[in-house]
Amino acid sequence: MLDQTTAAMKREKQIDALLLRSEIEAFNAQYCLALDEQRLGDWAAMFTTDALYVVLSRENADKGLPVGLIYCEGRGMIRDRAFALEKTSMFAPRYLRHIVGNLAVLGEGTDGSIKARANYVVLQVLYDRPDATLHQVGVYHDVFRRVDGVLKLAERRCVYDNLLVPNALCIPV
Amino acid sequence: MLDQTTAAMKREKQIDALLLRSEIEAFNAQYCLALDEQRLGDWAAMFTTDALYVVLSRENADKGLPVGLIYCEGRGMIRDRAFALEKTSMFAPRYLRHIVGNLAVLGEGTDGSIKARANYVVLQVLYDRPDATLHQVGVYHDVFRRVDGVLKLAERRCVYDNLLVPNALCIPV
Amino acid sequence: MLDQTTAAMKREKQIDALLLRSEIEAFNAQYCLALDEQRLGDWAAMFTTDALYVVLSRENADKGLPVGLIYCEGRGMIRDRAFALEKTSMFAPRYLRHIVGNLAVLGEGTDGSIKARANYVVLQVLYDRPDATLHQVGVYHDVFRRVDGVLKLAERRCVYDNLLVPNALCIPV
Repeated sequence: MLDQTTAAMKREKQIDALLLRSEIEAFNAQYCLALDEQRLGDWAAMFTTDALYVVLSRENADKGLPVGLIYCEGRGMIRDRAFALEKTSMFAPRYLRHIVGNLAVLGEGTDGSIKARANYVVLQVLYDRPDATLHQVGVYHDVFRRVDGVLKLAERRCVYDNLLVPNALCIPV
Repeated sequence: MLDQTTAAMKREKQIDALLLRSEIEAFNAQYCLALDEQRLGDWAAMFTTDALYVVLSRENADKGLPVGLIYCEGRGMIRDRAFALEKTSMFAPRYLRHIVGNLAVLGEGTDGSIKARANYVVLQVLYDRPDATLHQVGVYHDVFRRVDGVLKLAERRCVYDNLLVPNALCIPV
Repeated sequence: MLDQTTAAMKREKQIDALLLRSEIEAFNAQYCLALDEQRLGDWAAMFTTDALYVVLSRENADKGLPVGLIYCEGRGMIRDRAFALEKTSMFAPRYLRHIVGNLAVLGEGTDGSIKARANYVVLQVLYDRPDATLHQVGVYHDVFRRVDGVLKLAERRCVYDNLLVPNALCIPV
């Protein structure tokens, strides 16, 4: 009888983990959708007010250098960046398409924060070129937190593998 | 006591959503497998008899133009296309590999239909070229419906970002 | 009443399938992470002691030829390969990034083994080149088995679509 209860509790925990995993997957799908459709205001709203958002190269990340292509402390700075991009005429003439895979939920902190990782690929199509190209390849290092029950990013560090080509503006990923 | 019941019901609903999400993921995996292995008859069987299957450019989709590279109304037309391709000698000398990601289940209609989206990438290897290339990048706009309990596509609009290169036949995606 | 029990049992089975699917997804994410971070010892530990690990071309796989780029019988051989690569200076100057998608769980054998498939893409960045390239595209044909409750690979046959470019060492995928 005790064993049955233990087994049932173990199963409930597995289902909890599954629900969390699925929630993060759905979050990442919505996040990418907002970027792919250039709804940058919606994108900014997915962060906590005190969020850290950084885009940096794998080379710098491996050396422990925090210097990044993008460095935003707080949702205010994230919103500023979104606004700036929407006003930039050079941003428009391309399509972007994100693919996120290999989600790994790394654990929950005592404060309810959730650490996770996922690989990402950003594909780009310039309006005047027929082919799609690999714009950026990398990994998200994430900390999620709930605000009024809704999952938000308290931290997203995007570590990209590839050196960026000249025509790549500092677009969010 | 009431709170416990409410919490239990909420959890049941979350599990339902998870089961549906997972079913669509499995569907998309089977769909891509059929295309990757050139089992086009199996592919056509994944649509409802009255299904709409369209492949159109993001440019046209954004302008509200329905004109597409492929336009099939009903499974009959979808099957015809599958047959035509299997008889086309130019179709053979390439491998295709689909990757689907970023599934977003958008909701269920009162008639039991399910709206969803997912990003896709089709990678291509020509027999006489060593490297894989990005053949097509885009998004599926889907409506699923159950037929005898089995999930089928009532609508799949494939909106691709990239202009297509000349040697790309109108292959299904 | 009987119907309710049947429905409940069916649901339990669906949840079981979901838990297994999610476990394999998490496994594949960890597997790729180990390779992306060049932790090849951790990678080798994900196989059973008697595991088969093969990397072969789609062309040979289609012809039923077992000849592969890599052929390892048993974890000992897999470990040897991992060691050899870590000692190879040519392996270092590149970043790799795996994306796995389209998981299809094909069923469980009477011996508890689980058959599955998934598509994979390996993206590569050479240190002296700015752009990411498609290094390898293919499909995993897998057999999983539990060892002390933990999922391990008893067999992974990696069938790649693309001919490999000269600077590609026989790195594991």
